[in-house]
Amino acid sequence: VNDITGTVYLVGAGTGDPDLITVKGLNVLRKADVVVYDALANIELLKNCKDARLIDAGKRGNLHKMSQDDINTLLVSLSSEYGTIVRLKGGDPFMFGRGAEEAAALRAAGVEVHVIPGISSPIAVPELAGIPVTHRDHASQVTFITGHQRDEGECCKWDWGSIARYDGTLVILMGLSNSECISSSLIAGGRDENTPVAIVTDGSLPTQRTTITDLGRLHGTICDNGLKAPGIIVIGDCVKERSILGDLA
Amino acid sequence: VNDITGTVYLVGAGTGDPDLITVKGLNVLRKADVVVYDALANIELLKNCKDARLIDAGKRGNLHKMSQDDINTLLVSLSSEYGTIVRLKGGDPFMFGRGAEEAAALRAAGVEVHVIPGISSPIAVPELAGIPVTHRDHASQVTFITGHQRDEGECCKWDWGSIARYDGTLVILMGLSNSECISSSLIAGGRDENTPVAIVTDGSLPTQRTTITDLGRLHGTICDNGLKAPGIIVIGDCVKERSILGDLA
Repeated sequence: VNDITGTVYLVGAGTGDPDLITVKGLNVLRKADVVVYDALANIELLKNCKDARLIDAGKRGNLHKMSQDDINTLLVSLSSEYGTIVRLKGGDPFMFGRGAEEAAALRAAGVEVHVIPGISSPIAVPELAGIPVTHRDHASQVTFITGHQRDEGECCKWDWGSIARYDGTLVILMGLSNSECISSSLIAGGRDENTPVAIVTDGSLPTQRTTITDLGRLHGTICDNGLKAPGIIVIGDCVKERSILGDLA
Repeated sequence: VNDITGTVYLVGAGTGDPDLITVKGLNVLRKADVVVYDALANIELLKNCKDARLIDAGKRGNLHKMSQDDINTLLVSLSSEYGTIVRLKGGDPFMFGRGAEEAAALRAAGVEVHVIPGISSPIAVPELAGIPVTHRDHASQVTFITGHQRDEGECCKWDWGSIARYDGTLVILMGLSNSECISSSLIAGGRDENTPVAIVTDGSLPTQRTTITDLGRLHGTICDNGLKAPGIIVIGDCVKERSILGDLA
């Protein structure tokens, strides 16, 4: 058994734009000895590293290059070889990011671990599209939910009825492929089919694209426009603000 | 009427730790001609400014030094006097931040406006306390809600019954003074009084403090420990992760 000498930093890379990493995150990336990054982190950020070993643990949607267990094991293993280990994750490490599972594995192995939060897409991507997910006139609550579950295709196991009755903005991540189920379940649960909806793809990148529709036409709009993951769906009256604010990046 | 020459940047200062501002936010702060900042933004950040005029629009809780209308008017007015105007706001400008109201006022006056997102406290403050607000084992949904409403003391007008039935993590901002109403309403709505609860005050600052309790004892715990705003209340099983992860700052 090797000695554990390293410290692991779980770093949020932010939503796409490489300048949306935090100053703290950038500083630790600059002094990293090894970086384990995934596909949702902008690889432009790796240019800040000095001679660090770079390991691609890329995953996007269903294409997992490494399993979560493998990543956990890798991080523990690296902590006995390197001093400063950065685990660079898209968005924020703890928002649908499984960063907490990585942190738990590291703690269990006795490894020192710190988290540096990142700009999280369910807030920032709508924001850059001129949509405030909370607003005094529209919504004093917002719910973030993933359109994917642990097992594939089980999105419809959510209690969409209770979600439909909930009075606030709904932001759905990774929901593009389940949009038909999501909209029909919300409407069946009581949400007005005319509720404004925005679909934002490639958030905070130069290719960011925002499409406005309503709940009843959500699936059709995604198909007609050929919208592809990664994308975020925003449901609620706050979407109306985009007609005033427009793009704000 | 003066010509409008300036560009306004609504910048999220992050949750307290000055190194949690984004690289993009720091860069615009460095070139600012004038900065309008509020009390929730760490004033350490102002050290990065070069000869900028600094205007304190501070507000925290109920102590508004300037009204929102006055701030909107000020920003429009500054845009005819300066080139680069930074509006520095605590956390993220669009999360319970009224940044969208400021952006709308600027748009209405024909002023160029951009938003630079910030690290948002309802995600990052629990995270730094070892609490992931989403987690595969505990919650695939999270709701952020403010414990204050537009009018004082109207917190109990929320539909807490529907919120209580909602199956995900609940993060309440600015809820410390309304904690008695919040916990009793949630329990009346069906939430188990034994649901784990964390109260995190002074998030991401050296004085950050995390107190663990349960829903039934929320108000008593706040009183007994003398916990004061700003604070965040996290309700749900994900709070249990803190016993594994501990502080992660």
